[in-house]
Amino acid sequence: MHREENLRVRLVLVSPEGKINFGFILRLAKNFNVNEICVVNPQFDINDSEVLEFAARAKDSINKVRVAESLTECISDVLISVCTTAKLNLEGDVLRQGIRIEELPHVIPRQGLIALVFGRESTGLTRDELRQCDIISTIDTGSEYNVLNLSHAVALYLYEVNKIREAPHRREVYYCGQHVLQAIRRYLDIIREATGDERGVIALKHVLFRSNMSIPECTAIYKLLKKITHKINQRAK
Amino acid sequence: MHREENLRVRLVLVSPEGKINFGFILRLAKNFNVNEICVVNPQFDINDSEVLEFAARAKDSINKVRVAESLTECISDVLISVCTTAKLNLEGDVLRQGIRIEELPHVIPRQGLIALVFGRESTGLTRDELRQCDIISTIDTGSEYNVLNLSHAVALYLYEVNKIREAPHRREVYYCGQHVLQAIRRYLDIIREATGDERGVIALKHVLFRSNMSIPECTAIYKLLKKITHKINQRAK
Repeated sequence: MHREENLRVRLVLVSPEGKINFGFILRLAKNFNVNEICVVNPQFDINDSEVLEFAARAKDSINKVRVAESLTECISDVLISVCTTAKLNLEGDVLRQGIRIEELPHVIPRQGLIALVFGRESTGLTRDELRQCDIISTIDTGSEYNVLNLSHAVALYLYEVNKIREAPHRREVYYCGQHVLQAIRRYLDIIREATGDERGVIALKHVLFRSNMSIPECTAIYKLLKKITHKINQRAK
Repeated sequence: MHREENLRVRLVLVSPEGKINFGFILRLAKNFNVNEICVVNPQFDINDSEVLEFAARAKDSINKVRVAESLTECISDVLISVCTTAKLNLEGDVLRQGIRIEELPHVIPRQGLIALVFGRESTGLTRDELRQCDIISTIDTGSEYNVLNLSHAVALYLYEVNKIREAPHRREVYYCGQHVLQAIRRYLDIIREATGDERGVIALKHVLFRSNMSIPECTAIYKLLKKITHKINQRAK
């Protein structure tokens, strides 16, 4: 399946104020395969050298940026728009009823274009802007100081949304194969006989086999167990 | 149950280089109820005005900071230490076998003090530093540019770990305590010396420490390792 057929993410920033945050966000956009960036009325030159400094090796993210005059321009064509706010579920305020960030992967579609909308560093999104969104979401850390810096809130949302996308570049982990596991079982048997410690060997086996060993790991452990049994058996002779 | 009886988090920064990142991290520490911050050899004045500017309303996080001379100082007394790296699962490199950040909540204990260890902005953690950790973890975004800025990586780890602090206990499991884990580390060291098999012992340590051992399990494993070392050492005499 091509990425184009999967979920696509447009990051929307409404009147961002800080160049450092914007640079960091360009970097995050590349880190998390953001497809498009729409910036409403930025309060600085988006090509400023400080922006590019903090973008690090993601300077080319700037090519994905479109500058818009209004939030409407940035979200009118998306499947679902998600607006973020630090203030949620205030009593009786229906505009601020919404979901916590960790619920988001369960409620957004697996295909199509979604917008993740973030407000100003200083004052967030206005009520008029919140009104334009399909879903409201917040980060609830359980702390008395719940307000994250803009680019760090962006990081958490991109991280959660990216979880549900297929990741074709994700590195393969090669899990341990049957014959090495069988060898490990065999050496554990030998150690059980040599030490008489059945409890210990059972516990060790359970722990080893529930740890999703990679090939280098189980190979290294198999060799270690082999050495241990040789040392023990040499002694026995 | 009081928060004090739940999982406690010590954030460990090894030779951080940037004041802006450090300020942001102080803010994140308050956002996510970090209990302690241990900074090894910072490359700037941690009370610099730029640090405090970016800490925003979390300037008091500085009171949780302890400056240390070595990584050992910051992790010697914790239940489990988790080192982070952008490079994971390189073929055959057993030191870099580890788990993805989203697996972390499943492998760390629900109680006690853990350390989350982050390296330098420029070069991360050295191999010697990685060797001191119980578990290695990485953020794999699936992007060709997988390297996050330091404070954004910190945000994601604190976010994931904080999730399990919020979670109500499903069932009471008694997790392995500090003194048994310390004894296991000690016997692993002895086995490493006796066998000369550093790779094997590193792999075994990673696997043991990411398996959420219960008290009966780690006690049984500790006794087994003790028996093994005795058998090996008897032979040596």
